Amino acid sequence: MSPRPPLRITLLAGGVGGARFTRGLRDLLARRGVPAELTVVVNTGDDMWLDGLRVCPDLDTVMYTLAGVVHPEQGWGREGETTRVSAELHAYGLGWPWFTLGDLDIATHVARTELLRRGLPLSEVTARLSGRWDLGARLLPMSDQSVETHVELADGFGVVHFEEWWVRLRAATPARRFVQVGVEEAVAAPGVLDAIAGADVVLLPPSNPVVSIGTVLGVPGIRDALRATAAPVVGVAPIVGDAPVRGMADACLTTIGVETTALAVGEHYGARSRGGLLDGWLVDDTDADAVPALAEAGIEARALPLLMGDDAGPDGLTATDAIVLAALDLVGLGSRLR
Amino acid sequence: MSPRPPLRITLLAGGVGGARFTRGLRDLLARRGVPAELTVVVNTGDDMWLDGLRVCPDLDTVMYTLAGVVHPEQGWGREGETTRVSAELHAYGLGWPWFTLGDLDIATHVARTELLRRGLPLSEVTARLSGRWDLGARLLPMSDQSVETHVELADGFGVVHFEEWWVRLRAATPARRFVQVGVEEAVAAPGVLDAIAGADVVLLPPSNPVVSIGTVLGVPGIRDALRATAAPVVGVAPIVGDAPVRGMADACLTTIGVETTALAVGEHYGARSRGGLLDGWLVDDTDADAVPALAEAGIEARALPLLMGDDAGPDGLTATDAIVLAALDLVGLGSRLR
Repeated sequence: MSPRPPLRITLLAGGVGGARFTRGLRDLLARRGVPAELTVVVNTGDDMWLDGLRVCPDLDTVMYTLAGVVHPEQGWGREGETTRVSAELHAYGLGWPWFTLGDLDIATHVARTELLRRGLPLSEVTARLSGRWDLGARLLPMSDQSVETHVELADGFGVVHFEEWWVRLRAATPARRFVQVGVEEAVAAPGVLDAIAGADVVLLPPSNPVVSIGTVLGVPGIRDALRATAAPVVGVAPIVGDAPVRGMADACLTTIGVETTALAVGEHYGARSRGGLLDGWLVDDTDADAVPALAEAGIEARALPLLMGDDAGPDGLTATDAIVLAALDLVGLGSRLR
Repeated sequence: MSPRPPLRITLLAGGVGGARFTRGLRDLLARRGVPAELTVVVNTGDDMWLDGLRVCPDLDTVMYTLAGVVHPEQGWGREGETTRVSAELHAYGLGWPWFTLGDLDIATHVARTELLRRGLPLSEVTARLSGRWDLGARLLPMSDQSVETHVELADGFGVVHFEEWWVRLRAATPARRFVQVGVEEAVAAPGVLDAIAGADVVLLPPSNPVVSIGTVLGVPGIRDALRATAAPVVGVAPIVGDAPVRGMADACLTTIGVETTALAVGEHYGARSRGGLLDGWLVDDTDADAVPALAEAGIEARALPLLMGDDAGPDGLTATDAIVLAALDLVGLGSRLR
């Protein structure tokens, strides 16, 4: 009997939620001895220039998480971080008072900026940086072109970079709309469309459906690739009850006129059989009553506890493991991990 | 009686020697209550791009020294420095193994690079950065244009940046010649020529006569301004006996065919009365026998202990104070500080 080919899994991810889900998936595959090729297509809409350094929050969160060097409680940034450089920048009258970069993190940005300056596209820069560790997954920016999410504030407060709205304003000033600056000229980074077309399964971890997954889907060609791939597409709802599992996705959903419920987000993505993106959708137990409505919308849904966690239960599985297994079960692949 | 106008003192400086001399001068003037305007024209020939950051070693040494934040033993870099960012850069396969930047120092370079990127000339950037402290002196780069000192190595070893020769090769591979890349297009930074023309005295602290003072003098217009100014020009020999007080100036002097002696360096600068630059020249006691030969060459010289030091002697004066006073005495200005 010839060995099975590696399981090809492609994920579209934002920051913390996507990173933790991918780490759980990678670790479970490794523990089960299942050869796999993981590709994470990461949102770069939050990227920005800060004091001349190119900062890519989501790429770094995924990289640090998979590398095992992420700040464990925070979920982003480096463990054991210090802020000596930022304090100096502030003393020189630079930096943003509401956005402090750590020293180890700044090194990543200096390295990235230098490699970009040498002419490498972001996808190659990302490969170079993440090549320092054995991540067990390939990280791809959604695009080598800059596609910055800007936020048009309500009530004439102007337009701000997404990070300014998210971090400085805590998303408290309502957003009228999100604008992906540069998206028309952007193309998917090398490898992205192939990773979707050639996957055994495409997963949408619990990331922000508007400014993370939604931004990735905005890059020309990616949505079409998802519709066209032979692989099933399964998502994990980032909403439990009527609140985001993490972050402030409710403020984003309100802006695009989608209710903050797992059902509404599932319907927003839509069923592949009806021109949408999803074959399967995991919702929290709290939202079990949405399963029939989702089925009616053409999406196979299952309810289970959706709060990720890395402590093993009596069955040896962590909460994250159970979510990963349920996602793969939904498309008949879970048995390979049991 | 109307108050005397401030004493206008202009210095041409390299790194550590120029920085310590200027600090001693500033502190003595302050202790004596003598109003003064100090302008330091700093060598920028050692400047370089390192991982996309603009590093200006001599400007930073003078700034840190006058700000009181310099590493006291080293004479350059920041006190209480750490190297977390550099270690990360090396882990990413970047950085230069022979040149490690400290974290606080890197903040200066990030800030400088950002301000340059915004379009500010180096002279304005320097004012912005040094404006964080009360330096008691105005720092001017010799030029806003990049003038990089490159070193043509002997025996066909090619051409390297000055810092690579100095720091990596410890100046052990002989230099065939020094090339000031870009000097033809350079002009003196705003304020430099005026500071020389309008000075009461111009001082050349004990800096490297070839790659520090010599580089400053290479900028079109600066040598002429020194020849033309009504102010006397007094230098402090950076050589004691047949060795540099600090650094490896002997290797530089050998390259330009000048002996490593206080006499030879004085003659290399030459007497103003004979088309050179110097009115006065301080040599170490060890070199007292050079005084008549210097007088013969048209340069008024005086011998005294030239090793700078900041511990006060029985007369309340430090070794640096004594050197500063001797330099000003030589042109009749010392009485204002007594």
